[in-house]
Amino acid sequence: MDDSSHARDLQRRGNHQLASRITDHYERIGLPRFYVITIFNETRPEDFYVGGEPTPIGVRILIDHIARHSTDKESREQITRWIKRILHPYMEKHEGLHWEFHADETSEDLWMINGLVPPQGGSEVEKAWATANVASPY
Amino acid sequence: MDDSSHARDLQRRGNHQLASRITDHYERIGLPRFYVITIFNETRPEDFYVGGEPTPIGVRILIDHIARHSTDKESREQITRWIKRILHPYMEKHEGLHWEFHADETSEDLWMINGLVPPQGGSEVEKAWATANVASPY
Amino acid sequence: MDDSSHARDLQRRGNHQLASRITDHYERIGLPRFYVITIFNETRPEDFYVGGEPTPIGVRILIDHIARHSTDKESREQITRWIKRILHPYMEKHEGLHWEFHADETSEDLWMINGLVPPQGGSEVEKAWATANVASPY
Repeated sequence: MDDSSHARDLQRRGNHQLASRITDHYERIGLPRFYVITIFNETRPEDFYVGGEPTPIGVRILIDHIARHSTDKESREQITRWIKRILHPYMEKHEGLHWEFHADETSEDLWMINGLVPPQGGSEVEKAWATANVASPY
Repeated sequence: MDDSSHARDLQRRGNHQLASRITDHYERIGLPRFYVITIFNETRPEDFYVGGEPTPIGVRILIDHIARHSTDKESREQITRWIKRILHPYMEKHEGLHWEFHADETSEDLWMINGLVPPQGGSEVEKAWATANVASPY
Repeated sequence: MDDSSHARDLQRRGNHQLASRITDHYERIGLPRFYVITIFNETRPEDFYVGGEPTPIGVRILIDHIARHSTDKESREQITRWIKRILHPYMEKHEGLHWEFHADETSEDLWMINGLVPPQGGSEVEKAWATANVASPY
């Protein structure tokens, strides 16, 4: 294994671990694991600018929350602190890292997985989906 | 043509066909064809996780609806079934594919094409844009 | 420097300048410069379709506004014209370019930079962040 493939292997294992840990947190609040999709996009420093300057170590995280929504400002702030606790251990490893996240909440009515309308949040069907960890007709 | 360029050619034709078919559906409900932009981002399995696990054949579709919006839950569900009917024939070709889509609806007031404010939905100007298939001052 | 690295160098300087000019505008209305993140994603023509056709020179700009929001239709239209004025000089350089932007406004309550809740818009703390051009506990 040369240096470059070694670096790539490390990165792959890092991505896998982070995606898995993020998913654990969403599972704990009752979501099926497969509701959580994590996509990594590596960006070249010359394509990533913070404050108009190229930033070699920057992370910008975009989150879409569809299955669960906040009800008011307090619950939004609680969700935000919860997201921070999930990500912080992974971000603080990197000295001088600039990282930012924001979440958008979009309608669960405009959403399908494998062509199926996901069941109502907290319903028995959702629990069955979570247990089976797969979407199935209901 | 070697194997790799052959595969890429097949993919290009597949992308073109899918983008074209998606656009046909939006045209049918009165939108100018150029309102529909379709962007494909190929992702490596080690960058794409469903439920925390790398997923070799997964598709995550993000849709922004700007020109037309739903008015209530029923119309959102109708839009969702409509999107499913567009995508389903392309997705079901792949055995074991995990695919998910969601749509976001954002304000038509925060939108411009070629520096022009798009005309009101259903207006005569929009019809003229649709016929010409190009944005022009009005 | 060969032709290809020369082209890349030109592109890098173009990206840097555009990101810097965009940031200048947001700074002028009181935002800390580091609130503005600009990410460039180069897309192959066979991955970018306008109206179902591959488009060699097309630009699709997605903007998330989090720190400041519009209050009504008039203010949204004002923001849209303001964005156009920022981008137009860079887009009009390219003959026959198809370009489109839209902005989404998402909750400032679902947002953190470097693990910190950004201060209220227009507050003394935000001004201090803008002056220091760095996020710090308050």
